[in-house]
Amino acid sequence: MWDGAGAFQLPEWMIQFADQKQEFNKRPSKIGRRSLSRSISQSSTDSYSSAASYTDSSDDETSPRDKQQKNSKGSSDFCVKNIKQAEFGRREIEIAEQEMPALMALRKRAQGEKPLAGAKIVGCTHITAQTAVLMETLGALGAQCRWAACNIYSTLNEVAAALAESGFPVFAWKGESEDDFWWCIDRCVNVEGWQPNMILDDGGDLTHWIYKKYPNMFKKIKGIVEESVTGVHRLYQLSKAGKLCVPAMNVNDSVTKQKFDNLYCCRESILDGLKRTTDMMFGGKQVVVCGYGEVGKGCCAALKAMGSIVYVTEIDPICALQACMDGFRLVKLNEVIRQVDIVITCTGNKNVVTREHLDRMKNSCIVCNMGHSNTEIDVASLRTPELTWERVRSQVDHVIWPDGKRIVLLAEGRLLNLSCSTVPTFVLSITATTQALALIELYNAPEGRYKQDVYLLPKKMDEYVASLHLPTFDAHLTELTDEQAKYLGLNKNGPFKPNYYRY
Amino acid sequence: MWDGAGAFQLPEWMIQFADQKQEFNKRPSKIGRRSLSRSISQSSTDSYSSAASYTDSSDDETSPRDKQQKNSKGSSDFCVKNIKQAEFGRREIEIAEQEMPALMALRKRAQGEKPLAGAKIVGCTHITAQTAVLMETLGALGAQCRWAACNIYSTLNEVAAALAESGFPVFAWKGESEDDFWWCIDRCVNVEGWQPNMILDDGGDLTHWIYKKYPNMFKKIKGIVEESVTGVHRLYQLSKAGKLCVPAMNVNDSVTKQKFDNLYCCRESILDGLKRTTDMMFGGKQVVVCGYGEVGKGCCAALKAMGSIVYVTEIDPICALQACMDGFRLVKLNEVIRQVDIVITCTGNKNVVTREHLDRMKNSCIVCNMGHSNTEIDVASLRTPELTWERVRSQVDHVIWPDGKRIVLLAEGRLLNLSCSTVPTFVLSITATTQALALIELYNAPEGRYKQDVYLLPKKMDEYVASLHLPTFDAHLTELTDEQAKYLGLNKNGPFKPNYYRY
Amino acid sequence: MWDGAGAFQLPEWMIQFADQKQEFNKRPSKIGRRSLSRSISQSSTDSYSSAASYTDSSDDETSPRDKQQKNSKGSSDFCVKNIKQAEFGRREIEIAEQEMPALMALRKRAQGEKPLAGAKIVGCTHITAQTAVLMETLGALGAQCRWAACNIYSTLNEVAAALAESGFPVFAWKGESEDDFWWCIDRCVNVEGWQPNMILDDGGDLTHWIYKKYPNMFKKIKGIVEESVTGVHRLYQLSKAGKLCVPAMNVNDSVTKQKFDNLYCCRESILDGLKRTTDMMFGGKQVVVCGYGEVGKGCCAALKAMGSIVYVTEIDPICALQACMDGFRLVKLNEVIRQVDIVITCTGNKNVVTREHLDRMKNSCIVCNMGHSNTEIDVASLRTPELTWERVRSQVDHVIWPDGKRIVLLAEGRLLNLSCSTVPTFVLSITATTQALALIELYNAPEGRYKQDVYLLPKKMDEYVASLHLPTFDAHLTELTDEQAKYLGLNKNGPFKPNYYRY
Amino acid sequence: MWDGAGAFQLPEWMIQFADQKQEFNKRPSKIGRRSLSRSISQSSTDSYSSAASYTDSSDDETSPRDKQQKNSKGSSDFCVKNIKQAEFGRREIEIAEQEMPALMALRKRAQGEKPLAGAKIVGCTHITAQTAVLMETLGALGAQCRWAACNIYSTLNEVAAALAESGFPVFAWKGESEDDFWWCIDRCVNVEGWQPNMILDDGGDLTHWIYKKYPNMFKKIKGIVEESVTGVHRLYQLSKAGKLCVPAMNVNDSVTKQKFDNLYCCRESILDGLKRTTDMMFGGKQVVVCGYGEVGKGCCAALKAMGSIVYVTEIDPICALQACMDGFRLVKLNEVIRQVDIVITCTGNKNVVTREHLDRMKNSCIVCNMGHSNTEIDVASLRTPELTWERVRSQVDHVIWPDGKRIVLLAEGRLLNLSCSTVPTFVLSITATTQALALIELYNAPEGRYKQDVYLLPKKMDEYVASLHLPTFDAHLTELTDEQAKYLGLNKNGPFKPNYYRY
Repeated sequence: MWDGAGAFQLPEWMIQFADQKQEFNKRPSKIGRRSLSRSISQSSTDSYSSAASYTDSSDDETSPRDKQQKNSKGSSDFCVKNIKQAEFGRREIEIAEQEMPALMALRKRAQGEKPLAGAKIVGCTHITAQTAVLMETLGALGAQCRWAACNIYSTLNEVAAALAESGFPVFAWKGESEDDFWWCIDRCVNVEGWQPNMILDDGGDLTHWIYKKYPNMFKKIKGIVEESVTGVHRLYQLSKAGKLCVPAMNVNDSVTKQKFDNLYCCRESILDGLKRTTDMMFGGKQVVVCGYGEVGKGCCAALKAMGSIVYVTEIDPICALQACMDGFRLVKLNEVIRQVDIVITCTGNKNVVTREHLDRMKNSCIVCNMGHSNTEIDVASLRTPELTWERVRSQVDHVIWPDGKRIVLLAEGRLLNLSCSTVPTFVLSITATTQALALIELYNAPEGRYKQDVYLLPKKMDEYVASLHLPTFDAHLTELTDEQAKYLGLNKNGPFKPNYYRY
Repeated sequence: MWDGAGAFQLPEWMIQFADQKQEFNKRPSKIGRRSLSRSISQSSTDSYSSAASYTDSSDDETSPRDKQQKNSKGSSDFCVKNIKQAEFGRREIEIAEQEMPALMALRKRAQGEKPLAGAKIVGCTHITAQTAVLMETLGALGAQCRWAACNIYSTLNEVAAALAESGFPVFAWKGESEDDFWWCIDRCVNVEGWQPNMILDDGGDLTHWIYKKYPNMFKKIKGIVEESVTGVHRLYQLSKAGKLCVPAMNVNDSVTKQKFDNLYCCRESILDGLKRTTDMMFGGKQVVVCGYGEVGKGCCAALKAMGSIVYVTEIDPICALQACMDGFRLVKLNEVIRQVDIVITCTGNKNVVTREHLDRMKNSCIVCNMGHSNTEIDVASLRTPELTWERVRSQVDHVIWPDGKRIVLLAEGRLLNLSCSTVPTFVLSITATTQALALIELYNAPEGRYKQDVYLLPKKMDEYVASLHLPTFDAHLTELTDEQAKYLGLNKNGPFKPNYYRY
Repeated sequence: MWDGAGAFQLPEWMIQFADQKQEFNKRPSKIGRRSLSRSISQSSTDSYSSAASYTDSSDDETSPRDKQQKNSKGSSDFCVKNIKQAEFGRREIEIAEQEMPALMALRKRAQGEKPLAGAKIVGCTHITAQTAVLMETLGALGAQCRWAACNIYSTLNEVAAALAESGFPVFAWKGESEDDFWWCIDRCVNVEGWQPNMILDDGGDLTHWIYKKYPNMFKKIKGIVEESVTGVHRLYQLSKAGKLCVPAMNVNDSVTKQKFDNLYCCRESILDGLKRTTDMMFGGKQVVVCGYGEVGKGCCAALKAMGSIVYVTEIDPICALQACMDGFRLVKLNEVIRQVDIVITCTGNKNVVTREHLDRMKNSCIVCNMGHSNTEIDVASLRTPELTWERVRSQVDHVIWPDGKRIVLLAEGRLLNLSCSTVPTFVLSITATTQALALIELYNAPEGRYKQDVYLLPKKMDEYVASLHLPTFDAHLTELTDEQAKYLGLNKNGPFKPNYYRY
Repeated sequence: MWDGAGAFQLPEWMIQFADQKQEFNKRPSKIGRRSLSRSISQSSTDSYSSAASYTDSSDDETSPRDKQQKNSKGSSDFCVKNIKQAEFGRREIEIAEQEMPALMALRKRAQGEKPLAGAKIVGCTHITAQTAVLMETLGALGAQCRWAACNIYSTLNEVAAALAESGFPVFAWKGESEDDFWWCIDRCVNVEGWQPNMILDDGGDLTHWIYKKYPNMFKKIKGIVEESVTGVHRLYQLSKAGKLCVPAMNVNDSVTKQKFDNLYCCRESILDGLKRTTDMMFGGKQVVVCGYGEVGKGCCAALKAMGSIVYVTEIDPICALQACMDGFRLVKLNEVIRQVDIVITCTGNKNVVTREHLDRMKNSCIVCNMGHSNTEIDVASLRTPELTWERVRSQVDHVIWPDGKRIVLLAEGRLLNLSCSTVPTFVLSITATTQALALIELYNAPEGRYKQDVYLLPKKMDEYVASLHLPTFDAHLTELTDEQAKYLGLNKNGPFKPNYYRY
């Protein structure tokens, strides 16, 4: 043990992932497809998001691919559910604009400069009102864009229509088939007389498609911006394998995004997700939270504040000590499993809650997952004949033991925050702004600044994203005096911290 | 602004420091001397620490250097105030042992192994009961030690006596002169028939002395372990200048130490320091905290919890956004200076509170500093003829304006937490354990693991320090199963996080 | 001002209420009717409560009054929507039983005793699964019950069917007309060969009906138990006017009910109501809460914990001082109205938020009411031609000013907690248990204990309700030793506090 | 149990008290005397209050009774330690004035009115700078005052000197004997040509003395204002016994005083008391708090906020349920006694912590009392031969078991908040203002408003005290409009709540 060394090996789930990808390349089944995308795809169909059903268009069964549609300017370079829904979508975009002041500020600043003049961006993300604000911002900064959906369920048809109406070549609708999915991506990329020079990806499917089908395109591509955990891992794999042929920017691990997507967002969504599904009262409830990373910290803080008694499990002694200092008893799951009212997983690990744990839980215990993947609770172990499943609400199952004991399982063990609550626009604004800045940085970087590797967003950009969001809170930043900057050895405009700073 | 690059320049205070060192090398004045040591030295004389005055030995005016003392085994290889105080000091050490279970656990584990067998450690630190537990642990692990004080005021004479009595060559007493200070260090290093092979330093004075006087000693020295901000900077300077001739371990920046010394410790000491000095009530008070790093976060959380209304100032937009999300209004100091009841600085910067701010504060406003150095409040600007200073208690001055307005200045702008509250043994235990592990690592590292450079404690060690402190809280860590470890790509014994993880 | 005296005058809204009652007696319009019932009635139609639409029976347009239905035992002494829905309703009741352990405990304790043997209770409350558990508990304690709904919208048809199936004469369905409403009440009261001797009322309509139509019945009635604010005020009016001819128990003001309905429940429902309607993020938001009573205290605590910056307005200097000590800036609404993101009223007062305030709010400001009535926000003032109303979701209106500014008005100013979140079963359990104990107390009280007046629940009963709910939390109460009870001058079984104790 | 009735019997400790008083009347020993006064008297000698030793006058051994002193105006109608210390005392009074704005505001308002013109007040309280501000306020309102100390240790000699110098007949010094104590009181009361018409008492000794020695004086006395728990009980006993011959005002139970003395003050003083005595770290510590009244609520909230894990014991199921909802596990002491790091009593009960509990505590467990009396911990049971007591600091004893286990007992089981922390001036300001208003009310009340009984402060006065303290927090109260006042049935100036309101 006196040997302090320790290297990160390639984790199994990344290896599995590589295997899946192999599989996927042959001919993805619908299931296979979804397991490659972000877990949001699995849950977006039955999410509470009111936005998901703006208008009723379910009666129209014709595939968009078979429709002939033109926008009011006569263009038909798009494929959406129904171009006539554009007006409704436009209103949604306008409302989103009001909540995304950072992108609007970027538009203003760029009025003269056009830092993306000449950029030809192909994008593959969820298509929502917030994405639309991003796309129209990229347009205002000078870029041309073509766009597909990164998930077969998450497209808001009205928003896609509004984008198409205002001239964006968008290829996406809610309820695409697997075949549609790739067809849409291909329509974005494979265009007569237009070649992308930037990629904005969420999950890596677009990047993967170009690698497979149009590898030569990379000659003109200046960089890839990738947002998702999965996509980032794919990029690191490519890089390790020496196959990454353009610079890529990992915007998933920027400070601002991490803190908002995890700590601050989960602090609120754990309460929201539990309330919407179970109407439970938090006060006095005993809760065990598995994992005390950013997500676990957020969950614990919120529940403690609402009067719950919270226990924590951890494998990492440093996080464990933090849990202690923050006032949570650190236990093994077995020690408290019989007494708790709620079990929440936030580990990124697998089989943290096993069938054995589930067998020992008390009646009415609520079990849910806030972590990275749907592996944390061994849900498969509950699909056995002696147990009865009863769907009591959307996203809520009672699993009933022979003796009548009921476990309340939320979202079938998938992410509670994505399935049963909504992501605030403010968080999406931070992500979108980060993406925009990363595109600008890669597109404008002088020759040689970035090699064929995966980069984190420069800290200065990270700080800039934060600064663009401060006006939302009427927050006033202090500026260093010259004397102070000199004293600290800092540039007055930042970056203000060394890279290893922990915030 | 599209240029994301930004390098850390050499900060002014490090340049100043280098200048001071020059000065210092010539012939340090008493003032010069203190400005080189940690700020604790400036305040320890009048601190509240009850330990500082165990027994009354102030009547004995003979210099220890002029005394002939022997311990009960006949040795006189030490120099302390009064060897007869050993018994009292021993009891203090025994009490401290009860609160430092991690070091006691190390002793037990090492009973067979003796990982420091053959080590000859020369140390220069504060000499307190906690240090004594560290020294005796190093002894139990097989090391020989010689020790001096890193501060002319902070030695507990009784503890020094107890160490001398049990055979440790200790050269230290409370109230050394500058000359005494260096004489003590020299007596540790310059010994017939004994050459150190490890250095444990706190502030860099010991290291500096050996560099100047006995550079050849470094041939046998396997490494330096340095704890203080100041000492670490000296080492990085040496390294940059290519003059560092042995590996050095920076234990100041380990996760555990940082979180405990800053966030968790300050969360408590801000309340303690304010209460002991002013007996004020926190409820309803308006407070502005300058700086939202770990120290600021701790101060803000504590005061908010006690019912204060807290404003924050920041220069870094990321920390600023964190303050917003944590529920604090982000302001410029000028906006609130007229209305606040308390001003607390935690920036590490200089002149954060200027005379102009002080002029505008309301009557009875309390001003104090929790940051890195005593430069944050421009105290010098208050030493002008039109203002009257009135010492109302130890560490508390009223500065009175001509119109009768009083400002309550604590610890003359030096660190409130060190001057007016005490550091809990638990925090000292973490530091001491980190030091012990760093010594073990450097002493046992295979050839080539460490070069002539400054290293952070390996994460695995950091985690090990944390794990040794969990039993204090009866905290039970979960172990990964083989399957889980494989899934995550982790070794079951850690390290559990990548180096960039932010905790 | 040296005169400390001050008497409570009859408040205007009670006088108004008396006027309305006059009106109401003539021939209530549908609107008039609803304004007399608890505000839940106004909002229950479009509430989020999933329970409100268990099964789809909306296609059956025949009035229940025109149907011929029999339960499986051949009885037709009931009138519900559809007796065939009984099975579904029974499952809901069984689930509710699991969350109402106090009533289940009462059933067990009463197995031998039957404290309600001989009681003939006529009830008029919301008819939900929780009410069903109460009714079946009263039955188990020996009582005969007949039941109508206190609200024309809130009946769960399936639950009513289940009660009818198991033999309870229930007269209620969702969507009654005004005429139906009184017909149902009359069918409960006016029965051949059965006369009620106890009344359980919620809102006072049942009591009122008997006063008007069957005043002679009061000769046999031992008491009235009333739960609502409105009904309690009606009783105090009757009492003042010397017209109350039986004892009445005000269970609305018991400690347990007050704390749970207000402080603890609102602490959670403010977050829930805001999230479900707006998906907003709380962190960093500026909020003003008008009123710092129990409801305001709950709202403030929750929002502060979620990272909002909270301001408070108050008229009562004692509550104001509490707000200060709890860390909230006490302001006048005008001082912050331009800067806040959310305005929440919890005053019980009228026109706390005026049109002038609304005109000055910033774009996207959210306005909602958590207080007693829907008078707190002057919503009427917004129904002017120059403002556009846009319904963006159920319970969410955008009110749009000519310059494009939008105010987000929730639940049209009605109670957010009742309209946009659900009341936890645990809170309903406390109320139901209190009602059961009040019935038992009044029914069993020796002659002369209660006169023709309105009483609070005896403290010992209040304590008993609390004690029945402790097992939910696995909470273990300490018992006084004989010696301790004597020392304190207390009975070991309580009551433990003087009546003026403030908790 | 269906019988809801329950009357408060006379508690044993009041009976004991009555016995003690008997004892006391014969000829109180020094111990007996102290056990009758407020517990502050027991601890004030070794308190941390820096104010207790402003100047060194300990060398002067002459009894003040034997000295001939005159103030600068030639008066010798006083008896203090040393009239020459007046200047120092005056400065302390001036500083206190700045922190007691409510009394200063009263002075201003009364400039014309003099509501105490003609009042002759005899007072017996702690003599501190804050009391001096009260006395000089009473003077400014028109009263004549004569004053003695209610505690033989708590007088600040410098303040007494300053009062004497400015013309107040003060009879008090630090370190009075029992005989001195009564002599001083007698000198206040028994004066040629001056008869008191108001009594301000703290503990009841002054009232008692007049009852015994000068019962005829009550003919001219308009009322008694009593502040302490003990004194209030004495008054209720007199009232019960029909021997109270003037109206008395119980200012101890006013809302403002209760919340500040208990909830808000203890929230801070528990942390302060523990830190000053033990320098412990709160984070991660397991604590059991016995009793969840106002004091327990304050302790629990503070420790939870500092990261401790807190358990609660309770006998009252309502308070127990509150503890649950606030997030604390409710346990019996036995369940957690082996595992906790700190035991805090706040019950007002006796033998809550028994020798058996103490035997089972773990090593280094800290035991302290925040409750009403020093009976809560059975300290007497620790004074047995097998246990060793070691005084390690002022107010800190280690009690050592034969096996080496140490318990850390604070303040020998007396009140931690009074012994080891200080009461903030703000709290004293609330008390003093309440006393002043009560004197004004009783003195000005029209004939017949108050009978020979004990009264609570009228709510309007309570609200007025609160309102006078709002400016300290720059808090802005909202005023009711006429329309709103009418709607609520309230007078615009209050009182705003019914008497049973719980705050």
